[in-house]
Amino acid sequence: MPTSLAQIDAYLADNSDRFLDELKSFLRIPSVSADSRHKGDVRRAAEFVMAQFRSCGLEAELVETAGHPICYGHWLKAPGAPTVLIYGHYDVQPPDPLDKWLTSPFEPTVRDGCLFARGATDDKGQVFTHIKSIETWIKTAGSLPVNVKFVIEGEEEVGSNNLDMFLEANKSRLAADVAVISDTSQFAPDLPAITYGLRGIVACEVTVRGPNQDKHSGVFGGAIVNPVNALARIIAGLHDEKGRVTVPGFYDDIPPLSAEERQRLAALPFDEAGFLKELGMDACWGEAGFTTLERRWARPTCDVNGITGGYQGEGPKTIIPSWATAKITCRLVPNQNHEKIAAGLEQRLRELCLPGAQLEFRTWHGCPAFVFDPTSRYMAAAKKAIASAFGVAPVMIREGGSIPVVASFQSLLGLDTLLLGWGQNTDNLHGPNEHFHLADFRNGTRASAHLWHELAVLA
Amino acid sequence: MPTSLAQIDAYLADNSDRFLDELKSFLRIPSVSADSRHKGDVRRAAEFVMAQFRSCGLEAELVETAGHPICYGHWLKAPGAPTVLIYGHYDVQPPDPLDKWLTSPFEPTVRDGCLFARGATDDKGQVFTHIKSIETWIKTAGSLPVNVKFVIEGEEEVGSNNLDMFLEANKSRLAADVAVISDTSQFAPDLPAITYGLRGIVACEVTVRGPNQDKHSGVFGGAIVNPVNALARIIAGLHDEKGRVTVPGFYDDIPPLSAEERQRLAALPFDEAGFLKELGMDACWGEAGFTTLERRWARPTCDVNGITGGYQGEGPKTIIPSWATAKITCRLVPNQNHEKIAAGLEQRLRELCLPGAQLEFRTWHGCPAFVFDPTSRYMAAAKKAIASAFGVAPVMIREGGSIPVVASFQSLLGLDTLLLGWGQNTDNLHGPNEHFHLADFRNGTRASAHLWHELAVLA
Repeated sequence: MPTSLAQIDAYLADNSDRFLDELKSFLRIPSVSADSRHKGDVRRAAEFVMAQFRSCGLEAELVETAGHPICYGHWLKAPGAPTVLIYGHYDVQPPDPLDKWLTSPFEPTVRDGCLFARGATDDKGQVFTHIKSIETWIKTAGSLPVNVKFVIEGEEEVGSNNLDMFLEANKSRLAADVAVISDTSQFAPDLPAITYGLRGIVACEVTVRGPNQDKHSGVFGGAIVNPVNALARIIAGLHDEKGRVTVPGFYDDIPPLSAEERQRLAALPFDEAGFLKELGMDACWGEAGFTTLERRWARPTCDVNGITGGYQGEGPKTIIPSWATAKITCRLVPNQNHEKIAAGLEQRLRELCLPGAQLEFRTWHGCPAFVFDPTSRYMAAAKKAIASAFGVAPVMIREGGSIPVVASFQSLLGLDTLLLGWGQNTDNLHGPNEHFHLADFRNGTRASAHLWHELAVLA
Repeated sequence: MPTSLAQIDAYLADNSDRFLDELKSFLRIPSVSADSRHKGDVRRAAEFVMAQFRSCGLEAELVETAGHPICYGHWLKAPGAPTVLIYGHYDVQPPDPLDKWLTSPFEPTVRDGCLFARGATDDKGQVFTHIKSIETWIKTAGSLPVNVKFVIEGEEEVGSNNLDMFLEANKSRLAADVAVISDTSQFAPDLPAITYGLRGIVACEVTVRGPNQDKHSGVFGGAIVNPVNALARIIAGLHDEKGRVTVPGFYDDIPPLSAEERQRLAALPFDEAGFLKELGMDACWGEAGFTTLERRWARPTCDVNGITGGYQGEGPKTIIPSWATAKITCRLVPNQNHEKIAAGLEQRLRELCLPGAQLEFRTWHGCPAFVFDPTSRYMAAAKKAIASAFGVAPVMIREGGSIPVVASFQSLLGLDTLLLGWGQNTDNLHGPNEHFHLADFRNGTRASAHLWHELAVLA
């Protein structure tokens, strides 16, 4: 007698406390991939994932790379059924600013129905929903309705530098019908979503150098370029008065938004007042001629992520700083080529640099944007699974973030990806007090378990 | 028979080794006013000055303040002769970075014709020239040709917080005809200078706030203002394309530089290539239409001294920062009112702020600029004294820095100040390996001794 979804749901309910405890253990590992002091912790997190794979009954291999290792695991005992490639990441963003966390970022704490920790939603908690849904099927039914292959990497937050090489070298091993990633968000509380489009990104850093050391601002001020003023001028020059980016060729390759898509986005119940209230702000702002959702999801940006230069302490200090640095990311939309944009950005930065200042530029990483067909049959299966698990039909949305692996799955493995976000936009991913609603963790795990059933039914 | 300058010079020559030994004792006292661990040392340095005053035959009083004490001493037995107020400071900058000193900062060492120690030139060595010139007159002639009042404070390196209160409370006691300060530099080696103008300053801080915490740059980028981009736009907007400051009213009160002054500055042997080489730069830059020396000394500036916002660590981080802050100082020229400039700056900052961003502004401190008449009779006396002591006529220069006490002497006591710098720009004041050329110490002491004679001859 085949296992029913009711039996699956019962196992999920019976084991939800243990699932939470195990997730807490995962979150206690400070796997900050950007910080070389955490290299050992990143490996410990990979080993935690491997142990989870093995305890579910997957065959698993820790794949070494030039950076942090990739956790690969598979279960391939459903001949004729579709094969799903599940991707996620076990590395996390740095926890700064530490003083804004109410509880320690690496001591997971439940408060107000949420689990607080760095990585709670991005992406350890969401990865965990799929690991636990697989466990649930295997422990309940002895088998899965589909074949699954997991690729859980440790360098997503630093550009996934070694992932493409792994995908390239393992094309046949990774062959599948569709990819699943849970690293996005629902549209709103109690309104789950499937994300059919993402923005791309290019991340850069620019340093402007002036005098060979900090100099007295009385003795030297006015005589020579001030690197902070010069960098500010450069950054300011990246936008015009309408909020449009002035990088040469920036908009050249972008097709206009279709009337149909603009209608779809306009029809979403977007609560702009609530959005602003959550941010503590009194107005939105951005490129003229587009709605807030269009600017977030379907228009490119050029944002400074951090800036530093000169004296940072208390009170005044009368110096001309020796240098100033800014980290810059552009979010891209379909058809923009990130290498071309980076080259245009560098050209524009150099144009804007003042005499006497030396400009250094480097690119960290980049990936293209894309949009999938929101009416495909895989999308239909996911809609059904989500509706049954959350009790609400999902809306079809785009997102402003970037998931480079989606582009790689498309170009290297020929796969479309289902972007099934269990978190909320307000979960503070990348910020202090990151959290994951316990209800979203439970419903996401259930939707994942139901998805394997719906994808099998398609076949 | 009146004492001749030849007798004065003979005493100076006969006692120069002892003067150096006594200066070394002064320099061995680590009177770092910024560091509370050195509070006792700061007092020891004050007591050293008091003992020097008394051994010269001055009446002296150690004046307690809320911070470090002020050394007051006077000799007033020359009725009808001018009265000179001599200002200096016995406190010193912290010696950091210690590992850059070739010999210990508080163990004075003679090397290559220079005396190396913290405070050697700034300002113990320069103060000592005046103490020793007074001793020379009294020991040689039994009297001084002028009346003198010394105010040697212990908080110059930490903002002179208690000095104005002392000046205010002692206006009649401090009444004088002219002030003398040796805390500046010669124009170049073997080219002594009298500084007849200093710039003023106003120091501010601006913070731009956006979302109430760092937010994901994919999820939020494009929808809301980015505080770093907004702050960059504000800073960039403080200058126009010609490097002129756009603060409303900034230049309104500034009289044009006279043709005579421009000629005087242009005639100075300024080595711009050497200046740039020292800075490791390939070009000067600043307000169009003025020479480098004019921009340093006689034109106002608006410089960022430090900027911070968002992610400061290694690698990229994809956030919209919650806030960004810049420390800004404007160097001012005569007739600019620092309070009016601060108000104009705040107005301009607010004009440039983008929708959704909140701007906070604060002022730290300010003081006016001034220029003294370079042809006054006091200047003429100083020129004569320097020419006879150094064997070279001094050039008349301005400086870009600010010495707040000069403004206080003017506003509270109605005094002009003779700024007679015996040191060199390259003496590393505030840096490691601070030093004072022995020749400058000797010639400065001699010029000081001759100055008392030249001022008396005026009367």
